[in-house]
Amino acid sequence: MVVKVYGPAYATPKRVLVCLIEKEVEFETVPVDLLKGEHKDPEYLKLQPFGTVPVTQDGDYILYESRAILRYYAEKYKSQGTDLLGKTVEERGLVENWLEVEAQSYHPPIYTLTVQILFSSKLGFPRDENLIKESEEKLAKVLDIYEERLSKSKYLGGDFFSLADLSHLPFTQYLVDQMGKEYMIRSRKHVSAWWDDISSRPSWQKVLQLYAAPFKN
Amino acid sequence: MVVKVYGPAYATPKRVLVCLIEKEVEFETVPVDLLKGEHKDPEYLKLQPFGTVPVTQDGDYILYESRAILRYYAEKYKSQGTDLLGKTVEERGLVENWLEVEAQSYHPPIYTLTVQILFSSKLGFPRDENLIKESEEKLAKVLDIYEERLSKSKYLGGDFFSLADLSHLPFTQYLVDQMGKEYMIRSRKHVSAWWDDISSRPSWQKVLQLYAAPFKN
Repeated sequence: MVVKVYGPAYATPKRVLVCLIEKEVEFETVPVDLLKGEHKDPEYLKLQPFGTVPVTQDGDYILYESRAILRYYAEKYKSQGTDLLGKTVEERGLVENWLEVEAQSYHPPIYTLTVQILFSSKLGFPRDENLIKESEEKLAKVLDIYEERLSKSKYLGGDFFSLADLSHLPFTQYLVDQMGKEYMIRSRKHVSAWWDDISSRPSWQKVLQLYAAPFKN
Repeated sequence: MVVKVYGPAYATPKRVLVCLIEKEVEFETVPVDLLKGEHKDPEYLKLQPFGTVPVTQDGDYILYESRAILRYYAEKYKSQGTDLLGKTVEERGLVENWLEVEAQSYHPPIYTLTVQILFSSKLGFPRDENLIKESEEKLAKVLDIYEERLSKSKYLGGDFFSLADLSHLPFTQYLVDQMGKEYMIRSRKHVSAWWDDISSRPSWQKVLQLYAAPFKN
């Protein structure tokens, strides 16, 4: 069964795409245009009642929430492709710890920066410069903790590439390429090396080549 | 090895406590007084660099982020106590889906309500009535989707109690008991029955008896 992934142009579905490539799982994509409001169509809301992307459809098995989808495919195809969860329960525990750090501490400020800097004009509201400043300060504090962590461990979850790193790819790529804030990564030695490592993975490069972002700067 | 859980008076560590009781895992608690700033002590920051609760310490194995800790203990003691993850990879996928819904959609507005209504006076800032109204509206929309889900499925993740339900306990208890907003639960038939079911579990009642909240109304 080929997995259908909805909304490949956007950042959170790209987490799923890079995971499926790492796990060597066949998929096809279904475009969803958020700027046209297609995520609020009744048919779409039957799949995803919150009206957000991504959704995956695998026969009649439907999942949403990108990080839940990552966990499902990483576990279902545990012995295939890249191991993204660790070999032991203890390794997985640390992967979960840092995947939650991404979700709870890294994502909120970088998401706010993305909306404010990249989408505000398309969505028809003015940039809130105070909010941008506050969000950058919050993200910088998180990156300081990452710098310390990555001075002791090659990747966030341990000495292997995992879901905890993978989950950072789409929004950090926006930060570096589209928001003019690459200095936030480059000013931190270990974060910078980590970013070069994870962003150069063939899986991620393939996602970037195949699925354009929904805006051009 | 007895698991140490830091910060038992607070809501997010209570997720961990109820999980450990369900999994029949022995633990002891270590108080952390956030109002005195103990979470910013250098010794505490060595355990949890973000300065939040909970942390668990199991010999020299340290974890933080409540939902990561839940997953670790639910998996480590899979065959002991209540199964909180489901029997198959597909069941776990749906548990992860709804655990992420809790984290991404339910938690942000109920957390804002908690801070604004229960902690603002203690933290020395005025209540923001607009923010309270907005957060209640957001939470109501999420609860409408829960009502639909729970009309088809006894629990959020499926027909069994799981981490997806458990993770809702502490903040929903605040909403019902302390914030005067029980009507948000009671006005929705299936949500109301679900709440009665999960909040009456002996594990949760034990947590409430043993670990008082950090405030009294």
